[in-house]
Amino acid sequence: MDDRVREHAAVLVDWSARVEAGDNVVLSVGPDAHDLAVAVAAELGDRGANLLAAYSSGEITRAYLRAHEGEFNANPAHELALLEETDVYLSLGGGRNTSATADVSGDVRQAYSSARTEIREARFDTRWVSTVHPTRSLAQQANMAYEEYQAFAYDAILRDWESLADEMAQLKTLLDDGSTVRLVSPGTDLTMSIEDRTAVNSAASVAYDSHNLPSGEVFTAPTATEGEVTFDVPMTLRGEPVRDVWLRFEDGTVVDYAAEQGADVIGEILETDEGARRLGELGIGMNRGIDRYTDNILFDEKMGETVHLALGRAYDACLPDGESKTDSAVHVDLITDVSTASRFEIDGEIVQRNGSFRWEDGFEN
Amino acid sequence: MDDRVREHAAVLVDWSARVEAGDNVVLSVGPDAHDLAVAVAAELGDRGANLLAAYSSGEITRAYLRAHEGEFNANPAHELALLEETDVYLSLGGGRNTSATADVSGDVRQAYSSARTEIREARFDTRWVSTVHPTRSLAQQANMAYEEYQAFAYDAILRDWESLADEMAQLKTLLDDGSTVRLVSPGTDLTMSIEDRTAVNSAASVAYDSHNLPSGEVFTAPTATEGEVTFDVPMTLRGEPVRDVWLRFEDGTVVDYAAEQGADVIGEILETDEGARRLGELGIGMNRGIDRYTDNILFDEKMGETVHLALGRAYDACLPDGESKTDSAVHVDLITDVSTASRFEIDGEIVQRNGSFRWEDGFEN
Repeated sequence: MDDRVREHAAVLVDWSARVEAGDNVVLSVGPDAHDLAVAVAAELGDRGANLLAAYSSGEITRAYLRAHEGEFNANPAHELALLEETDVYLSLGGGRNTSATADVSGDVRQAYSSARTEIREARFDTRWVSTVHPTRSLAQQANMAYEEYQAFAYDAILRDWESLADEMAQLKTLLDDGSTVRLVSPGTDLTMSIEDRTAVNSAASVAYDSHNLPSGEVFTAPTATEGEVTFDVPMTLRGEPVRDVWLRFEDGTVVDYAAEQGADVIGEILETDEGARRLGELGIGMNRGIDRYTDNILFDEKMGETVHLALGRAYDACLPDGESKTDSAVHVDLITDVSTASRFEIDGEIVQRNGSFRWEDGFEN
Repeated sequence: MDDRVREHAAVLVDWSARVEAGDNVVLSVGPDAHDLAVAVAAELGDRGANLLAAYSSGEITRAYLRAHEGEFNANPAHELALLEETDVYLSLGGGRNTSATADVSGDVRQAYSSARTEIREARFDTRWVSTVHPTRSLAQQANMAYEEYQAFAYDAILRDWESLADEMAQLKTLLDDGSTVRLVSPGTDLTMSIEDRTAVNSAASVAYDSHNLPSGEVFTAPTATEGEVTFDVPMTLRGEPVRDVWLRFEDGTVVDYAAEQGADVIGEILETDEGARRLGELGIGMNRGIDRYTDNILFDEKMGETVHLALGRAYDACLPDGESKTDSAVHVDLITDVSTASRFEIDGEIVQRNGSFRWEDGFEN
């Protein structure tokens, strides 16, 4: 077995999920994530955790959903009971076709998802971590050769997470202490309030309230957004290519939008509900192991020298105690490159210019 | 998709497991059983059942068990909770290597299995059915080409189960009403009591207390076995080839044994515990779709014109109410060909001679 697969498994189990003896673990395995699953199983055995393997396949979901008629039963008791007794939920993505569910109607997906709210919440109450095994399907999505994609993915995943967590802690402190942020970049001049918000140091570990591997971003939940923003990182949303989305905000709400490509999808998202026209997240990508866009949000939003904003729901961890902003069914991330002609300010002080943070060599105030 | 895969899925869901709307179903999928799992998912969606897919891989089990040190936690709560809320458990076997766990020590397997008694019982309390997807690995085990093996497996699986159930009911009635059976064949002259025993008409459906697909046998739990028996169907037990096992019984207990090959494995099995030296099962294979041995007990023991006996545990369904014969940790089936120079008698009346039952054309009394 490739040593990188073993290292990935060890990082996932130890750094990310903090697995301990006696933990009840669900390992959700994609059809082509088998090798990683074998490596993770060895780590779990070694730690004395209890392993149950689940199977996560888009083709199975598609077959089930297309054959299903009528209403979905709400929160099936067997799956709910499993998750309520689960300490750690590890999702190893790795299908054979990223479009495996492309011909399932949006209404059916939505109905299925809505019937599973308690199951989703029970999963979010575990020490859950999502990662992916680099597969040929993901390589294809990223327009890369397989071996090239493996190198890319492991560069992103096998980092010195402890030292990245320390670096990100500096930005978290600045955001926690700050009141107003401003992002200036070609096509972008946006001001947001972060007063009373708490930033998450997303260091790919449940110990940091961070549930993705790779991660490597600091994010918070902005309000009172004013100005305009252009997202120049290309992506696919709901199966449609989206390019150069432009949004104008007034008083925290999107009042105008455009896109070079995919404007209809953006319009659809904005029409979902009231909360979909407001920002749920401001994230600053700090994982320099991710050096290019691959049309996979798990990687793209963490890329060094990018900033992303999400329309819709916020993470409760960012909000004042007792507050919740789950007033939207969507959380759609859009990304902008800040490596050139850009600056990011907190309370008027420049924290990042042209991709470099003020604590880095090469930073120019 | 091969039509036979769809038919297999429909037989499994409807005839075997009797799935109904709202049933909570666990679908346990072997790594190479994916196509069958997709077909089953469509059937489950169509019926309005609730689907959770589990992943069953010998390689994952091996990695976990070899890395584990010390005691296993008893009956992990998440897996137990899942099974306690499960109505139907469908196991789709289909690995890539039938020897995937060959280098896990017997002690570790045994300890792991012993720690999971309640989980196993909870699974047996569901409407569980085990089947296999014909894979290249199983074809290899059977010494067949892949396409040849597919034809073999579907001949066994896609039968007219209703009419086979009716035929087997005739034998069940004879066994239920009988007191003594006698099997005579080259190297075999064995007498057993079946007084007060109830035979199972194993028609590949939970409606018949039958949990294998394919099935096609009638079995009961004999006592007071006297005489000798030779098992001429070759098989692999605990990784060792076993040929021409010979046992002599006195007063229900094995008092002497020999084997052309694998005598050490037979000795080991007999030494397991007190119950391992007595018979737990007498089974009559009646699935004529199975026309040759493939070293896979799921198929071999149901082959038409064979009889099998199991050392060890009996099925409670065969015993008088309240009685249980779980006094052994083993249940090891051994098979003998009764197609020539053989007869099977109930209370002195010949029921089967040279493979033909008395209700069949060609039967000679």
